[in-house]
Amino acid sequence: MATSRKLTVAAAQLGPIQLATPRSEVLSRMLKLLDDAASAGVRLVVLPELALTTFFPRHIIEDPAEVAKFYEVESQEQTLLASPNTKPLFERAKSLCLDVSLGYAERWTDGDKTTDYNTMVYYSAAADKILAKYRKVHLPGTKEPVRQPNVAEQLEKRYFTPGDLGFQAFRAPGLVSGALKAKDIVAGQEASSEGKGDPILGMLLCNDRRWPEGWRCYGLQGAELVLQGYNTRGYAPQNPGTPEEQEQLAVFHHRLSCQAGSYHNACFSINCGKAGYEDGGLLIASSIIVAPGGKIIAESKTSDDELVIATIDLAECRFNKEGVFNLGKHRRVEHYNRIVEQTGVIEPPFLE
Amino acid sequence: MATSRKLTVAAAQLGPIQLATPRSEVLSRMLKLLDDAASAGVRLVVLPELALTTFFPRHIIEDPAEVAKFYEVESQEQTLLASPNTKPLFERAKSLCLDVSLGYAERWTDGDKTTDYNTMVYYSAAADKILAKYRKVHLPGTKEPVRQPNVAEQLEKRYFTPGDLGFQAFRAPGLVSGALKAKDIVAGQEASSEGKGDPILGMLLCNDRRWPEGWRCYGLQGAELVLQGYNTRGYAPQNPGTPEEQEQLAVFHHRLSCQAGSYHNACFSINCGKAGYEDGGLLIASSIIVAPGGKIIAESKTSDDELVIATIDLAECRFNKEGVFNLGKHRRVEHYNRIVEQTGVIEPPFLE
Repeated sequence: MATSRKLTVAAAQLGPIQLATPRSEVLSRMLKLLDDAASAGVRLVVLPELALTTFFPRHIIEDPAEVAKFYEVESQEQTLLASPNTKPLFERAKSLCLDVSLGYAERWTDGDKTTDYNTMVYYSAAADKILAKYRKVHLPGTKEPVRQPNVAEQLEKRYFTPGDLGFQAFRAPGLVSGALKAKDIVAGQEASSEGKGDPILGMLLCNDRRWPEGWRCYGLQGAELVLQGYNTRGYAPQNPGTPEEQEQLAVFHHRLSCQAGSYHNACFSINCGKAGYEDGGLLIASSIIVAPGGKIIAESKTSDDELVIATIDLAECRFNKEGVFNLGKHRRVEHYNRIVEQTGVIEPPFLE
Repeated sequence: MATSRKLTVAAAQLGPIQLATPRSEVLSRMLKLLDDAASAGVRLVVLPELALTTFFPRHIIEDPAEVAKFYEVESQEQTLLASPNTKPLFERAKSLCLDVSLGYAERWTDGDKTTDYNTMVYYSAAADKILAKYRKVHLPGTKEPVRQPNVAEQLEKRYFTPGDLGFQAFRAPGLVSGALKAKDIVAGQEASSEGKGDPILGMLLCNDRRWPEGWRCYGLQGAELVLQGYNTRGYAPQNPGTPEEQEQLAVFHHRLSCQAGSYHNACFSINCGKAGYEDGGLLIASSIIVAPGGKIIAESKTSDDELVIATIDLAECRFNKEGVFNLGKHRRVEHYNRIVEQTGVIEPPFLE
């Protein structure tokens, strides 16, 4: 019998962060959102992709010193918890007993090697550490700029390397009361936690949400809650349609992808955007919390800093995880080989 | 530059087929739909899953002779083109220059071995043969009946074996004018057809549409048009919600899955149901034609026999196939192994 696994969560949507906006101002806005979330009983706050800066991949920046300003420098010895840009955020989260997930640009140094990733981390207040890190796998856009008038650049492939950590789900302690721990598992109990352990979470970044592969990798690990941060362009001059039509279409595709991913993997998702006119470029809002049945249960109303809050019961995931999307009963992996054996399209032969 | 690849297509939704409905009556209804489709300029008609009979997996049928009546018997020597139940359908299609795709229960005999499948075929008028066969991969429901009061049975796993043919896309000749043939390909032309050859099609049946794996296998073959037949229960007493609420939810999940599958693989889809109260069980209607951008461009208005018609331009697939869903540029197969290496869920370990 499914026991209740209730939890109040929030997407902390951010309004635009301009190129000239100081880091300290962004941090202040985030701290206010954390305070407000705590006042509302929230235990988990999700911030957008690249939450500390503007979405700089829309710019062609030639000077490496200028580019470097957008990244957090990390290594085995140096973690985000100690960075002056983020340390106060995690300290506040700890004092408020809040878990926080946020996206940022990561410059990872390992000896002589430096690699840049579009990254999202999960900070657990109960563990007082960064429990999990995700590096964006599906980078959109191009490496070389188009450099033409009336073209909005999308240069994520220029500034980031595709993530190397895959889609690794993790358990977050302390979020729901009464969750079983390893020490509670005694002989004779079922091997599977069946939703009795600490909640199983996964992270995605922006374009990832359009790729069912990532969602399914989390579904195959029993994910109950997927956290997704985005910066999604609402308009590009080179695309068809008026600005209004393009924005509506971008929101439609965003919702469709988040709703399908949640439904097909029977998990909640918290999808949090950076919104509004940022450096002249329009980012869609529509931060949404989606239920395992695919319905949107909360959505942002503005294009500015805004908390989108819902109290969710992770036990609701069981109905479809044990029914229509019981993966073990219905999947036929012998027919899926193309998904891993070929990256791009191989068309059937031309007819004679 | 994308050339126009226009084509008028139809979902030929069927109203209910009761247990007592004679095959000849079903055939007459189908022939009328084909005639009407041809009058409207349609070149391709898609009929539902199990289009020749009632959805018999809702019944517990113990007598093998009774069960046998629902299947078409096929072998290497005996094809559907010669069956008295379907021969007139293909003859009419040929005379009308219409391609037809339909679902039915297949009893395949190979020497001493007999296997039952939930099957869909594609008949090409230009080729005057069955060009492709698909056997449903994702069978829902159970093998053993629940046999309890107020439970609607779903026994597809009892009456069918999971399909053994995978998701094999195919080209359909004669559907669009000016499509390149193999003989047109000369040295110096690009290896990929880029939408210049005969259209690339795939087939799915009902529950398959909820599984992104099948759609992606077709997407990886450059599918421009996916044909999907369904019989989807609108109400089951054992499920939560009133009949009206359940039906609305079933339609929502149907649309969500078809729209996401089309969008994520940049293909059109024709999704055709059997609808209405069949043997006392409610089947949803909502036969839909979906564009590569995920929008519904035509939808049925009744729960009865009805043609849902749209003129589509397969060239529209190119915008997303070459952009946001350029699979070769964006997919990272090194992170997808779970999708083929495990059928069911493997949860992360319990925390200490």
